[in-house]
Amino acid sequence: MSRPTGAWRHQQQHRGRMWAASPVFRRQLVLLRSLLPQSPPSSPPSSVAGRRFATLSSPSGTSGSLRAAHGMAAAAAAAVYEADAEAVVRRITPPLDRARHKGQAGKIAVIGGCREYTGAPYFAAISALKVGADLSHVFCTKDAATVIKSYSPELIVHPILEESYSVRDDERASVSSKILTEVAKWMERFDCIVVGPGLGRDSFLLDCVSNIMKHARQANIPTVVDGDGLFLITNNLGLVEGNPLAILTPNVYEYKRLVQKVLNCDVNEETASEQLTALCQKIGGVTIMQKGKADVISDGKTVTQVSTFGSPRRCGGQGDILSGSVAVFTSWARHFILSNELPTEKRVNPTTLGCIAGSLLLRKAASLAFEKNKRSTVTTDIIEFLGKSLEDICPAEH
Amino acid sequence: MSRPTGAWRHQQQHRGRMWAASPVFRRQLVLLRSLLPQSPPSSPPSSVAGRRFATLSSPSGTSGSLRAAHGMAAAAAAAVYEADAEAVVRRITPPLDRARHKGQAGKIAVIGGCREYTGAPYFAAISALKVGADLSHVFCTKDAATVIKSYSPELIVHPILEESYSVRDDERASVSSKILTEVAKWMERFDCIVVGPGLGRDSFLLDCVSNIMKHARQANIPTVVDGDGLFLITNNLGLVEGNPLAILTPNVYEYKRLVQKVLNCDVNEETASEQLTALCQKIGGVTIMQKGKADVISDGKTVTQVSTFGSPRRCGGQGDILSGSVAVFTSWARHFILSNELPTEKRVNPTTLGCIAGSLLLRKAASLAFEKNKRSTVTTDIIEFLGKSLEDICPAEH
Repeated sequence: MSRPTGAWRHQQQHRGRMWAASPVFRRQLVLLRSLLPQSPPSSPPSSVAGRRFATLSSPSGTSGSLRAAHGMAAAAAAAVYEADAEAVVRRITPPLDRARHKGQAGKIAVIGGCREYTGAPYFAAISALKVGADLSHVFCTKDAATVIKSYSPELIVHPILEESYSVRDDERASVSSKILTEVAKWMERFDCIVVGPGLGRDSFLLDCVSNIMKHARQANIPTVVDGDGLFLITNNLGLVEGNPLAILTPNVYEYKRLVQKVLNCDVNEETASEQLTALCQKIGGVTIMQKGKADVISDGKTVTQVSTFGSPRRCGGQGDILSGSVAVFTSWARHFILSNELPTEKRVNPTTLGCIAGSLLLRKAASLAFEKNKRSTVTTDIIEFLGKSLEDICPAEH
Repeated sequence: MSRPTGAWRHQQQHRGRMWAASPVFRRQLVLLRSLLPQSPPSSPPSSVAGRRFATLSSPSGTSGSLRAAHGMAAAAAAAVYEADAEAVVRRITPPLDRARHKGQAGKIAVIGGCREYTGAPYFAAISALKVGADLSHVFCTKDAATVIKSYSPELIVHPILEESYSVRDDERASVSSKILTEVAKWMERFDCIVVGPGLGRDSFLLDCVSNIMKHARQANIPTVVDGDGLFLITNNLGLVEGNPLAILTPNVYEYKRLVQKVLNCDVNEETASEQLTALCQKIGGVTIMQKGKADVISDGKTVTQVSTFGSPRRCGGQGDILSGSVAVFTSWARHFILSNELPTEKRVNPTTLGCIAGSLLLRKAASLAFEKNKRSTVTTDIIEFLGKSLEDICPAEH
């Protein structure tokens, strides 16, 4: 990145002042500050975590094209805040009230698990429990159910999904309808669902899951989409388009496919935050957490990141911990915002808060697990530290 | 072993000087030294680990017959180096780079697991993860899959192999073709595969695995062959002939069968290293690790051994830990050599390095496990110490 010239700097400062004076920018700051009592870092955000966040595209922009909104380049470069993630966790984690009943701390469901994959839905579901949810369900195929049940007696595992190989062509419509009916009767009870861990790519199964997602949306259930769920929605954007309760958590490869499909271009590191914002806007109000060295979160309006260092181990399964954790924190954040009756203009998206908190917790737990197990750290080791990590941030007794 | 006479000593010294002056010998030394900065032991190698390594046969020799290459008997006896295995481990183990993504530390697959055997493929696959691979897959029969999955949610288990009892004669061709297609779509993603742990000896299954091995070879995927995989290739040498990325890890019985089949003679302790070299050459450039009190490794050019003491416990399953570990280290060694752009003449075979490192790590872990568990030590106890053993040699922070 070449050094800016004096003229360039002057121009950018001018643009920065214009942007800083804009009502949109002021509102974003208010939102973040009202949420995060520990003020955002006073030093100007800059190139972080190996990515350059050049600009924040106009929140009012509806076009998916990557355009540097006039007059906001410099300030926008400063608009990717490092979230005060610990404060978020403390704020949204509900007190452990002795008068509470089973289920009040959260009921989560994971839609995933097929003949091929059983570890991923287990990791997501058990992580939800370990973060603090009261009940954690898994909806998976019959083949997967026995195995997932054997991992842990803590989970409620429903063996109701089917893959193509087990359904005759002439039965498809009736089986599909039966599956939806089975899931639907549970749906209202869930505070958040996770779609995708170990889902596989069977066409019949994905069709059934599409119906489940549509139903969850009608019921206003927040939905975290990860893994093969991202494969599904990338090919069928209508499933999440315009759903403010949808959270997509793509890794580097999944993000690339999403950008190519939605924005019809390649990932551009130079305009990372602008591209992320444009992606959220184009899909229509969903929240995206772009996982990487830092997890960068946008709902199309703000761009926040969590860059607390976790672990250099990249064993498979960490994304599943994250999806389960984000589900719990999103349900807690939603409850926090609704029960504190914040005026509309002060409300921050609960999905953003859920992502921030989930990201931090995974990073803390991964760090502790790595400290203990070093290169041999596996996903189960990290899950073991979710409880301690949350306790360190937000002691249960207080 | 009788004491050598003065005349014998003189003759051997003369032969030794001739061999030491040969370009082949000098090149071998350069290779080993360039790889192993900690110089090889200054004391002359001798009869070690209960075997006499009489000669190193000529690397240019292509005949499989056991001939004492003229003029190199004495020096060749000195040419079986004890590997500086710790230095190898430190050299090839990749740094834990914070910018890395899932999969970049290695993706391993184990082909094995049938109705009868499920422990062996699990041990191999979980060991790969515990050494530091990011992803570990198992391709096994349907019967085996449920059990292997239930051992650990960390593994990705594909229930796609079939045994004769489950396939009608007229379906064989189509089932076999389908199995190959299923495995082939994954193959390019793997850095190394392990063929054999718990594979069994069903003829149909072995036919399918032969096809998988041929495919792996076309795709240039290093292949560790152990257990029933050695039974398969001993009866079908074409599967590994001339494949420099094939690693055979026979125990004493499997080695005996291999020598009988390939060299048409019995194992001769008096000419152990010569026989091993001849075996590698006759099969055509494969690497063989002959497991025993010391693990002796040859690719037909050099002969190296690892004789660090492990454990006196001989519980079943240690060979599976070894095959999984060798797979990871071989993929790391291959990456190390390719990414450091060593000139061709300085390149040491990554398969040799993988064997040296895997052998040492198992021995260290077995030693620690035995110290803790004594006679009750089982394979799972040893796997538990893979992480600490690697950390002791090569701390993750550095």
